[in-house]
Amino acid sequence: MGAVREGSAEQRAYLDALVERGLLVPSGVPGVYGRGADFEAVRLGVDALVTRAAVDDDAEQLRFPPVLPRRQLEATGYLKSFPHLAGAIFAFEGGDAQALALHDAASRHEDWSGHVDQSELVLTPAACYPVYPAIARRGPLAPAGVTVDVGGGYVFRHEPSTDPARLQMFHMRELIRIAEPETVAAWRDAWRDRAVELLRSLGLAAELDVAADPFFGRGGRMLARSQRQQELKFEILAAVAGPEPTAIASFNYHQDHFSSTFEIAMEDGSAAHTACLGFGLERVTLALLATHGLELDGWPDGVRADLGLHG
Amino acid sequence: MGAVREGSAEQRAYLDALVERGLLVPSGVPGVYGRGADFEAVRLGVDALVTRAAVDDDAEQLRFPPVLPRRQLEATGYLKSFPHLAGAIFAFEGGDAQALALHDAASRHEDWSGHVDQSELVLTPAACYPVYPAIARRGPLAPAGVTVDVGGGYVFRHEPSTDPARLQMFHMRELIRIAEPETVAAWRDAWRDRAVELLRSLGLAAELDVAADPFFGRGGRMLARSQRQQELKFEILAAVAGPEPTAIASFNYHQDHFSSTFEIAMEDGSAAHTACLGFGLERVTLALLATHGLELDGWPDGVRADLGLHG
Repeated sequence: MGAVREGSAEQRAYLDALVERGLLVPSGVPGVYGRGADFEAVRLGVDALVTRAAVDDDAEQLRFPPVLPRRQLEATGYLKSFPHLAGAIFAFEGGDAQALALHDAASRHEDWSGHVDQSELVLTPAACYPVYPAIARRGPLAPAGVTVDVGGGYVFRHEPSTDPARLQMFHMRELIRIAEPETVAAWRDAWRDRAVELLRSLGLAAELDVAADPFFGRGGRMLARSQRQQELKFEILAAVAGPEPTAIASFNYHQDHFSSTFEIAMEDGSAAHTACLGFGLERVTLALLATHGLELDGWPDGVRADLGLHG
Repeated sequence: MGAVREGSAEQRAYLDALVERGLLVPSGVPGVYGRGADFEAVRLGVDALVTRAAVDDDAEQLRFPPVLPRRQLEATGYLKSFPHLAGAIFAFEGGDAQALALHDAASRHEDWSGHVDQSELVLTPAACYPVYPAIARRGPLAPAGVTVDVGGGYVFRHEPSTDPARLQMFHMRELIRIAEPETVAAWRDAWRDRAVELLRSLGLAAELDVAADPFFGRGGRMLARSQRQQELKFEILAAVAGPEPTAIASFNYHQDHFSSTFEIAMEDGSAAHTACLGFGLERVTLALLATHGLELDGWPDGVRADLGLHG
C-alpha cells in the first residue's frame, strides 16, 4: 500500500464520529467506506438538487461504468499530469498451475504481480473522461454543440487518507459542455455562480476560489501556476472538519485539451472547446453533516425539504 | 487483453442494434459500454421494482463502492474458485524519473507492469462481498439475524465478450440474508419464487433452474457438480438474443462459507448462515428490450407502468 496521508486531528475525529453513527462503514483500507442509509439519503438529495438546477441545460443523459479503456487515459496525458492518482486493472490469464500459484501467494497476502497481467482497463479518474471519445464517434457537432449529464458516477483517486473527505472512490456529479469556445466559457461561468448559490442555499459557508489541479512532481508546479494564471479552474470551498477548507465542487475549462486529443470539431470546421463541472457528492454530504449535525432530524426544515429528506 | 469470447451471430447483431439505437455506447473494449437514457430508465425501473418487492424484508440499507480490500477477496478463496474473473488494482508509487518512464511506456500503449505496484484494492466481484466483514464488525447477531439491501452496485468480471449480455462491469441488485440456517434457507426459497413471478409479470419467459458458479479449471468441475447436487444455487433464465438462455437473476445459499471466513455467529453461539440474491440489472434490461422492442413507446402499458416509464 502507498503512504497514507494522515488527516488532521479534527478530520480523524470526524471520521470516528461518522463511523460511530453508522454514516460510514470502514472497509479496512483508508478512503474506502460503505455508506449508511442517512448518508445515502443526503448524497442522493444533493444529486437530485443538481439535476433540478440543470433542467434548463436540457442535457443529454449518458451514464458510464467506473472503468475506462486505458488507451483513453494514455491519450489524454493523464499519466504525465497525475500518475500518482491512476488505478490500472490487472487480471489473471493462466491455466490450472498458474491459478494455484496465484491462490498460494494471495492466501499469504503476498504481491500478485508475478501472477497477473495488465488488462485493457483502468479506473475512471473523472466522470467526464468517457464522454469525449463517445461524442467524437458521432462526427462534427452542430452549432451550439452538446451538453452531457453523466449523473453521479464513481471515480477513483489513489490517495489513501484518514481524512474522510479524501476518498479513494467517490461519486462525482458532472455536467460537460462541448461547443464553440465562447459558448463553453460562458456556460462554465454561469454554472460556477449558480453552484455557489445552490450550495449556500443549503446552509454551507461556500466560497469560490481560483484553483489548480494536483499536478504531479516538479513540472506539475509550473502547470498549476499556468492553470491559475489563466483561471481555467475554479473550486467551491467549504469547511468539513477543522479550519482547512475542502473543495466540494469544481469548474474546469479545458480549452482544446480533450477536443484535440479526441478530434472533436464543429460542423463548420472550427475548433470545439470543452468544460466540465463536478460536485463531489460525498464531500458536499460531509460538509452538510458537519454544518447541520449527524442527526438528520435536527436539520433546518428548508434544507430537509430541498434534499427530499422525509420521515 | 485476454481472449475475447465471441458472441453468437444473434448476440453480435443485437449489440449492433443496441449501439445503433443509442441504448449502449461502445468504449472500444468489449463488455464496457456507456448507457443511453432509455437503457437507464429501464434499468432503474427494474431496480425500483425489486425495491418494492423487498418492502416486507425491511432490510437495512447499505451501499458500497465498486472496490474492495484485496485481503477480503484473498480470505474468501475467490482466487481459487474464480481467478479468471478477478480484477486487481495497481498504482504508481514513484518519483519524477519513474513518472516519466511510466508516461513514456503508456504513450506507446506498452505494458505498465514495470512502473506500477499492486495496491491494497481489487474490484468488487459481487455486491454482497463487502457486507460480510461489515456485519462481522458488529459482533454476534440477535435472533432472526439481519437482512441487508445493497442496492444495485457495480461489480467486475474479467470476461471480455461481444455478447452484450456478458459485461465486464455491470449492476448487480442484491439482497443478503444472514441468520440461523433454516431462516436463511427459507428466505432464499421464498425470494426465488417471488422473483420468477416478478420477472414473468414484466412479460419475460423466465424459467427457474438449478445452477452452478463458473468455477475455474479442472477442480472447478467437481465444485460445480457438488453445488448442483446440493441445490445451493438457482438461476432464472431468459432469452436475450438467439436460443441460448441467459441467467438474469441468481439465488445463492452459501451455508457457512462467508460466516466462517468472517466469523459471524448468532448471539447464542450457534452458527449463522448466509444467502444472497442478485438481479443482473443490465441483463434484465437487455431481456426486456429483446422481448418488447428497442422503442420503449411501443412496450405494453402494464410493463411501462410497472417500470415507471412515463412520457
